[in-house]
Amino acid sequence: MRATFMYGAGDVRIETIPDAVIHQSTDAVVRVTRSCVCGSDLHPYRGLPATPEGTTMGHEFVGIVEEAGSEVTTVRKGDFVIAPFAWSDGTCEFCREGLHTSCAHGGFWNDGNGTLGGQAEAVRVPQADGTLVKVPGITEDSASLPSLLTLSDVYGTGYHAAKRAKVTKGDTVAVIGDGAVGLLAVLSAKQLGAERIILMGRHKDRTDLGVEFGATDVVPERGEEGIAKVLELTGGLGARKVLEAVGHMPAYEQSVGIVRPGGIISRVGVPQYDQGPIGWSFFGKNTTLTGGPAPVRAYIEELLPGVLDGTVDPGKVFDRTVGLEEVPDGYKAMNDRTALKVLVRP
Amino acid sequence: MRATFMYGAGDVRIETIPDAVIHQSTDAVVRVTRSCVCGSDLHPYRGLPATPEGTTMGHEFVGIVEEAGSEVTTVRKGDFVIAPFAWSDGTCEFCREGLHTSCAHGGFWNDGNGTLGGQAEAVRVPQADGTLVKVPGITEDSASLPSLLTLSDVYGTGYHAAKRAKVTKGDTVAVIGDGAVGLLAVLSAKQLGAERIILMGRHKDRTDLGVEFGATDVVPERGEEGIAKVLELTGGLGARKVLEAVGHMPAYEQSVGIVRPGGIISRVGVPQYDQGPIGWSFFGKNTTLTGGPAPVRAYIEELLPGVLDGTVDPGKVFDRTVGLEEVPDGYKAMNDRTALKVLVRP
Repeated sequence: MRATFMYGAGDVRIETIPDAVIHQSTDAVVRVTRSCVCGSDLHPYRGLPATPEGTTMGHEFVGIVEEAGSEVTTVRKGDFVIAPFAWSDGTCEFCREGLHTSCAHGGFWNDGNGTLGGQAEAVRVPQADGTLVKVPGITEDSASLPSLLTLSDVYGTGYHAAKRAKVTKGDTVAVIGDGAVGLLAVLSAKQLGAERIILMGRHKDRTDLGVEFGATDVVPERGEEGIAKVLELTGGLGARKVLEAVGHMPAYEQSVGIVRPGGIISRVGVPQYDQGPIGWSFFGKNTTLTGGPAPVRAYIEELLPGVLDGTVDPGKVFDRTVGLEEVPDGYKAMNDRTALKVLVRP
Repeated sequence: MRATFMYGAGDVRIETIPDAVIHQSTDAVVRVTRSCVCGSDLHPYRGLPATPEGTTMGHEFVGIVEEAGSEVTTVRKGDFVIAPFAWSDGTCEFCREGLHTSCAHGGFWNDGNGTLGGQAEAVRVPQADGTLVKVPGITEDSASLPSLLTLSDVYGTGYHAAKRAKVTKGDTVAVIGDGAVGLLAVLSAKQLGAERIILMGRHKDRTDLGVEFGATDVVPERGEEGIAKVLELTGGLGARKVLEAVGHMPAYEQSVGIVRPGGIISRVGVPQYDQGPIGWSFFGKNTTLTGGPAPVRAYIEELLPGVLDGTVDPGKVFDRTVGLEEVPDGYKAMNDRTALKVLVRP
């Protein structure tokens, strides 16, 4: 079968590898019907050191179960399934608390231990019962595939940002970042009842989609100017909730600058830094910092009905579709910002 | 009147200054019956650069109202009052939310703008209606004065750590630091129903008091060894809630090391650093960081009944009493760790 590998910054190749097969009785093999390129894939695309052995790529996919191991009980051959970006057993104490990304027996795709990536024709899925969510009535050509695919990561991640920030009815929320996660954090904040949603981003086609998703204000300014603008919009006080969907230090610094005293910064952009300001500028106003890798598995059942009945259309974040062989072009387009998010149709 | 000044590291002097008087109609003048030296006073005691003009000291006091401004309605001459370590109007939107340390018209003692310190014979209290809490039936010789004085800072601050961490029935809590705030964070966690309270500290006389306040385990080890010990005590997972009552980087690093995935680190030790690790080691397990200067004013009414009826005896943190002229000795004793917390009887 064909699968995507990265060998270093900017070096993405599609290669032939042995077909995905069951290793353990709790595995399933899923034939991928839609996958995509993630904003977080751009971090290695920009900075991965040369890696002679390469690494498989992709952690978002939906597809049809090809085969299920003997112990798998919740899905079987032919079922349409959504795969979250982390696999998990669904039974450990962390999963029971809804923190599937800390599952005691789980892990992530492309982990270097035999779990390969989703930008491929098929994937072996460990802990299939805990990981996969079956959606009856969906075929491999359903119009809702793009929106269903967002439940695999970006929608659940935006929702995690909003949930961790405890966004509630009437809230004032600032969202930093106009990538797919930022835009879906806007959608999530809106769903949770936020009254004022300030989107910080400077790509008009993206912020336009943010406005469609519920943003009430758009702030293209950055740095001190951006902070001043948000303070001006919030009566000098700042936003009660800040959803940080970028992962770079300027976005974190912006968060600290615009959060209201007693407010919450919820990060879902994977931090590309180790140290950050948490001294008096942060502590003095009783700021809370939260967030992390989103346990999207915990949110699928909650978000699925709105996707299926068309109340929300998170799939709008996809603005380009490529075949598997064109995945390298997809990376380039996202890196060049000529595409917001690239759908892959293997 | 006599008041305490600091002129640089280790240089504390008692000097004569003009008597405290009303400046604004919302002020009161309080004659101090008990004050004390705070762990946070040791930060300048160790590091304040030489300051020729000096700065007044002390932010914890109880006393008797000597005079109240014409607009003050809640206290009058002769009332016994507790003064929180921040003054606040009690009416702005932050005060109404219980975040009095961010009061729109409030501030801190020794602010360099005419608000002087509590290690003195008397203090001018701005925003007296919002700031002071009258306690009927208390005289200047009541046995409960030390415990009442803890409501001015250390008890409310320990309680803030526990409240911000959302300590709840059955919780596993680790407290870092065996100073007065750490010990009262133990007491607070116990009051809020924590089942397991691990106190990290290595001064046996102090941790013994911690055990009396409710600690179930004492971990004297620090650094990697301390982290390993707490992980061992918590089945390898870490503590759900970590209350950090020190303010130095090793204590923060310890917090990150011992917090359970999905857990909360609540800091009330004023951070003596600007940058700290908030990258993958923190983010990867969906850690929450919260805390800040405690709005102790918000907690006084809630904590007062237990102090008055003797259910709790937070005043036990005081293990030495000095007169105002001996305050420099009090600083030295706390800095040398021959005293846990020094009570001042002007």
